[in-house]
Amino acid sequence: MRHVISSYDFSREEFHKLFELSDEILGGKLKPNVNGKVVSLAFFEPSTRTATSFATASWRIGAKVIGFTSVEGTSVEKGENFADTIRMLENYSECIVVRHKFDGAAKFASEVSEKPIVNAGDGKHEHPTQSMIDLYTVYKVFGQVDGLNFALFGDLKYARTVNSLLRALTRFKPKKVFLISPQQLRARREIVQELNYEVIERDNPYDVISDVDVLYVTRIQKERFPDEMEYEKIKESYVVDLKLVEHMKKDSIILHPLPRVNEIDRRVDKTPQAKYFYQASLGVPIRMALLYTILTG
Amino acid sequence: MRHVISSYDFSREEFHKLFELSDEILGGKLKPNVNGKVVSLAFFEPSTRTATSFATASWRIGAKVIGFTSVEGTSVEKGENFADTIRMLENYSECIVVRHKFDGAAKFASEVSEKPIVNAGDGKHEHPTQSMIDLYTVYKVFGQVDGLNFALFGDLKYARTVNSLLRALTRFKPKKVFLISPQQLRARREIVQELNYEVIERDNPYDVISDVDVLYVTRIQKERFPDEMEYEKIKESYVVDLKLVEHMKKDSIILHPLPRVNEIDRRVDKTPQAKYFYQASLGVPIRMALLYTILTG
Amino acid sequence: MRHVISSYDFSREEFHKLFELSDEILGGKLKPNVNGKVVSLAFFEPSTRTATSFATASWRIGAKVIGFTSVEGTSVEKGENFADTIRMLENYSECIVVRHKFDGAAKFASEVSEKPIVNAGDGKHEHPTQSMIDLYTVYKVFGQVDGLNFALFGDLKYARTVNSLLRALTRFKPKKVFLISPQQLRARREIVQELNYEVIERDNPYDVISDVDVLYVTRIQKERFPDEMEYEKIKESYVVDLKLVEHMKKDSIILHPLPRVNEIDRRVDKTPQAKYFYQASLGVPIRMALLYTILTG
Repeated sequence: MRHVISSYDFSREEFHKLFELSDEILGGKLKPNVNGKVVSLAFFEPSTRTATSFATASWRIGAKVIGFTSVEGTSVEKGENFADTIRMLENYSECIVVRHKFDGAAKFASEVSEKPIVNAGDGKHEHPTQSMIDLYTVYKVFGQVDGLNFALFGDLKYARTVNSLLRALTRFKPKKVFLISPQQLRARREIVQELNYEVIERDNPYDVISDVDVLYVTRIQKERFPDEMEYEKIKESYVVDLKLVEHMKKDSIILHPLPRVNEIDRRVDKTPQAKYFYQASLGVPIRMALLYTILTG
Repeated sequence: MRHVISSYDFSREEFHKLFELSDEILGGKLKPNVNGKVVSLAFFEPSTRTATSFATASWRIGAKVIGFTSVEGTSVEKGENFADTIRMLENYSECIVVRHKFDGAAKFASEVSEKPIVNAGDGKHEHPTQSMIDLYTVYKVFGQVDGLNFALFGDLKYARTVNSLLRALTRFKPKKVFLISPQQLRARREIVQELNYEVIERDNPYDVISDVDVLYVTRIQKERFPDEMEYEKIKESYVVDLKLVEHMKKDSIILHPLPRVNEIDRRVDKTPQAKYFYQASLGVPIRMALLYTILTG
Repeated sequence: MRHVISSYDFSREEFHKLFELSDEILGGKLKPNVNGKVVSLAFFEPSTRTATSFATASWRIGAKVIGFTSVEGTSVEKGENFADTIRMLENYSECIVVRHKFDGAAKFASEVSEKPIVNAGDGKHEHPTQSMIDLYTVYKVFGQVDGLNFALFGDLKYARTVNSLLRALTRFKPKKVFLISPQQLRARREIVQELNYEVIERDNPYDVISDVDVLYVTRIQKERFPDEMEYEKIKESYVVDLKLVEHMKKDSIILHPLPRVNEIDRRVDKTPQAKYFYQASLGVPIRMALLYTILTG
């Protein structure tokens, strides 16, 4: 039994094992079957993409899915506390996938539950299964994760996918890691300080874009700015458009955890660099591999 | 692989094949099994009946069901666009059932998705699987669809079930087709003009009711009238009550896509003509037949 | 085929049969399989715990689950009446689990439906499957239900779990049954009068607590008091805290249907008397036993 709370919960070897398991699933060599074990979705913060992806992965490995994908109409609304809800699901299922708006909620759930907890995003903290998808996509395209130049782009301060990805990269040997964001949305100091590789911080994507192998895009949200004028000023500089893509290497790739709003121009979808839909398609097999490992481990 | 967007997507032979497949399922001769393929429900417009019917049909043929039956708590609320949501579900599933409040949404989804799209109602446009149920009910009761007198009754302008039924009837040889509605809710000219049979339009159901074999009732909604007085005036004339049923043939039938509010008096439920609950009971087998055809085709 | 509307629908022998079936399921001797029959959840009043418990029980016996756990986005919102919704689910499934805010809703559903109805809570009336869990917990801990002293504590007037438990106890031979509540929330006279055992009513738990084997706690809701001052006065006296537990017998137990808000101090969770999480864990096996009995009966 193991919990998946942070990218740090996986070693380099374990990441590679997951990639290989996922390859076997995609290739039809492995037909995982957990024989009707039950997976709980405990989405205190709503999400279609992630919830549906976990549900699909669960069904496809022969599990059953229960739980909720929004707290409306749940006991949470009657005032039940988080721990009691987790204890309920612990009784019902063999694994609990938790999403919550508070940092640390998944960790707290893991202290309450004797069944494995999978963090599907907790506040501004982490979203480790997204990093598994991200790096699996890199692995599929480049054959490996090591030796590449990464650029994380957009909101690096509040995006939990960024925290998880930065931490996941400590398990590999990236060549260069660029962090491209407005001053207000720089990656958090406490995370940057704990990394075992150096990062290069920039405001302007054009300074480094021609050097990038993997461009990882996150959305900048208006709400992060105290002043709408501030937001309007920087907004345009943090959109991936055809002009930016022209400066990218031929064999570089653009990733995005999705959903995307305006931060990638739709015309980019047809460039060879656009790999975010392919990336999304890898969410189900890698989560199948993860849940299968947890439920049969 | 095929999409089901309009009643026009099915030929006379294909309708009959569906009816026969559904007969085999009901009779227990065929136990369809798609071995865990995944069906997505993408209900951007909420619906219990149709969503539950598709879900039941999917589970009963051995499929798994994912997706959403309301957009609350979905990425759609975060601003994700329709195409990206469809692309997500395309990654997760072998077939996508779409309901949307906009005309043409299903068609648009079929242009984005490489997986088959089933239109479960798009705005005021079409709802083709409802017509399959409607005509399958006629087929079960009368042994055939040809040679009968149909009357479509109520709101013929905004009801997508009416559009789909009128178009589905082009695949058969109805004897007479009466369209009974207030002036304001006449069937759309562009649809009437494309039909390969003649229609007879009337205001007053009593003019033709004794001639009708199949009375197809739809609800008139107050919101369709700019002036509530207008609505109050016509409301009573478009209710199926015991008095109207008395004028109907002994072996005629009353259909309704349900849910029904006040447009059929509850006392009618016990008349031999009332076949709308029987009709509803055929929703699952015919959708089993359709999904089975799509998923194994 | 049978409906489960009230605790009265089960005889002493049938309660014991359920307990034994549930024991076999827990012990792994019985692996119930209903081969894909369909269970409907018709939760007109939202509930996570009960809905998820029934869903889990259904999946674990090889059933499929359809329906709704909240009326938002359902036909009910379009004005469809309750009977038509039940008739819809009757077409789709082999069993319908109903929760509704109106007393008598489950009974009414059973008059409409030819498929078995399971009452999962109707207004202030009953919640019979909760009593099955309650008494099964007693049976597991004490080896039997007879000969024990029960105390029902808190809101005895509006809590449907109390009505069902009082009625279920008529099938057994409780030694003493204490009813501990404020004057305003006394158990209903019409229910007390129909019981085949005597009850002892008290305001103050300390009068009887040292005599109690099974303390059954329910939440007192502020809304029940016309005057908030009234509520504030009595509130503190109806909380189970460490002080009260100190007066309890070593081998007595505390039960609660959950969710719990403040009526049991969280520090009580670690006392040996606290059995409400264990009780919750028995919800799934006893409901598996019940649904299996209904679906194969």
